[in-house]
Amino acid sequence: MSSPLTAGTPLTVGNGRVKEARKLSRRSVRTERRLFLADGPKAVEGALTVEGCVVEVFATPAALEQHADLLGSTDVTLVDERALASLSDSVSPAGVVAVCRHFDAPLEHVVTASPRLLVICADVRDPGNAGTVIRTADAAGADAVVLAGQSVDAYNPKTVRGTVGSLFHLPFAIAPDPAVAVRAAQARGLRVLAADGAGDVDLFEADLTGPTAWLFGNEAWGLPDDLAALADARVAIPIHGRAESLNLSTAAAVCLYATARAHRATT
Amino acid sequence: MSSPLTAGTPLTVGNGRVKEARKLSRRSVRTERRLFLADGPKAVEGALTVEGCVVEVFATPAALEQHADLLGSTDVTLVDERALASLSDSVSPAGVVAVCRHFDAPLEHVVTASPRLLVICADVRDPGNAGTVIRTADAAGADAVVLAGQSVDAYNPKTVRGTVGSLFHLPFAIAPDPAVAVRAAQARGLRVLAADGAGDVDLFEADLTGPTAWLFGNEAWGLPDDLAALADARVAIPIHGRAESLNLSTAAAVCLYATARAHRATT
Repeated sequence: MSSPLTAGTPLTVGNGRVKEARKLSRRSVRTERRLFLADGPKAVEGALTVEGCVVEVFATPAALEQHADLLGSTDVTLVDERALASLSDSVSPAGVVAVCRHFDAPLEHVVTASPRLLVICADVRDPGNAGTVIRTADAAGADAVVLAGQSVDAYNPKTVRGTVGSLFHLPFAIAPDPAVAVRAAQARGLRVLAADGAGDVDLFEADLTGPTAWLFGNEAWGLPDDLAALADARVAIPIHGRAESLNLSTAAAVCLYATARAHRATT
Repeated sequence: MSSPLTAGTPLTVGNGRVKEARKLSRRSVRTERRLFLADGPKAVEGALTVEGCVVEVFATPAALEQHADLLGSTDVTLVDERALASLSDSVSPAGVVAVCRHFDAPLEHVVTASPRLLVICADVRDPGNAGTVIRTADAAGADAVVLAGQSVDAYNPKTVRGTVGSLFHLPFAIAPDPAVAVRAAQARGLRVLAADGAGDVDLFEADLTGPTAWLFGNEAWGLPDDLAALADARVAIPIHGRAESLNLSTAAAVCLYATARAHRATT
């Protein structure tokens, strides 16, 4: 299955390029180099759809054969199983990892594109949660996601994997100050709704028909009061049983699909 | 803070009762003894609300003082930090763990209680997912949950923790054969809806007004075809973006809240 571009002996774990790529498991190196690792065929497939994103694809000979459809028209650097595993955060690596350029959009870009449904995450810390929220935002038809404040690095391997390709499907921006993101959304005519278990508006009685930005807070402590106060409404998902709350990603799913449903009913 | 019942030196990690309790981290021992561990104040609080559930509460002196409201009227066995940590599956143990009796209800019991909203999980394998589904079912006002087929042990410490107390809030049953659970629900007049990404009924066009049982499948492969075929309808959550699917717990949240909303609109 090897093309001229992939001929030769697979690189081993001690190879210089493999070693350099492996350093991207550290956030500081990712930030400094503006690079990250896309792990597995789903992520690599997504990355290949983003122009200029992929720098180099590493694959084992077995994965190159298995994913010939995906990798057949791309330059691939062959690596052995151990070298590949050293680049993967996964317990069972899928045999293909790409070094990719950061591709987040400026905040101004995502809000000026007239979004109908925007997601702003403030201080979401768990990589898996952030990934699930991005995947869910994609499924619900959101136009963009903003990771704001002290949120986890969008390029964390667990986040990338948690999005199951969705990181590459919709624009996302990184905003150090969540308040700036909220005000930017409002300035473009979006109604900002703070997801707040103690909110005074019931999700299913809220007006979700217009352009809407959802503001989600930290897994443990939710939204800081001064940030939630900037929103146009504080919206709670009704709790019918005895649970105290929902977790972040399930709450986001319920809010985003309620909005998608309202949007669909009005178009 | 110690009462006569809690006086004395805290037990250490080598104590016989601590060692016996620690064995409950193994599924085989849990199943044989029909016991499990409830870890942390939220779980212990829930367990104490279920009559006859709690066998023994272990707490550190610090936790006994911190959770005096919860533990003040209960016999507590004092243990030191290390002994407590040996009973906890958590990275940062909260200082209180209870040995509890299994309390799942018979399948017949949960279906004959005329549920309006029932959740049947078939082959849900990840403990965290199962916990989140139970928590979400509780929040959405479900009457009961059935863990069917090769689903994870409901008494797995990660599942118990993932429910954040909800395990103790609503009845749940364990059913070896998911088909038996589906037929039992149908026999009691529930409409069984299979959550199926390839389903031919759009969730938001489905009739959710009557008594409904949701059937959710495995995280990776969904529902086996022969099981989904038993359902009264195969229902898909519409995907508006480019994501291929939602994950199990977010999908369950969207389905269950859509049903809760329909039920509320008709009552």
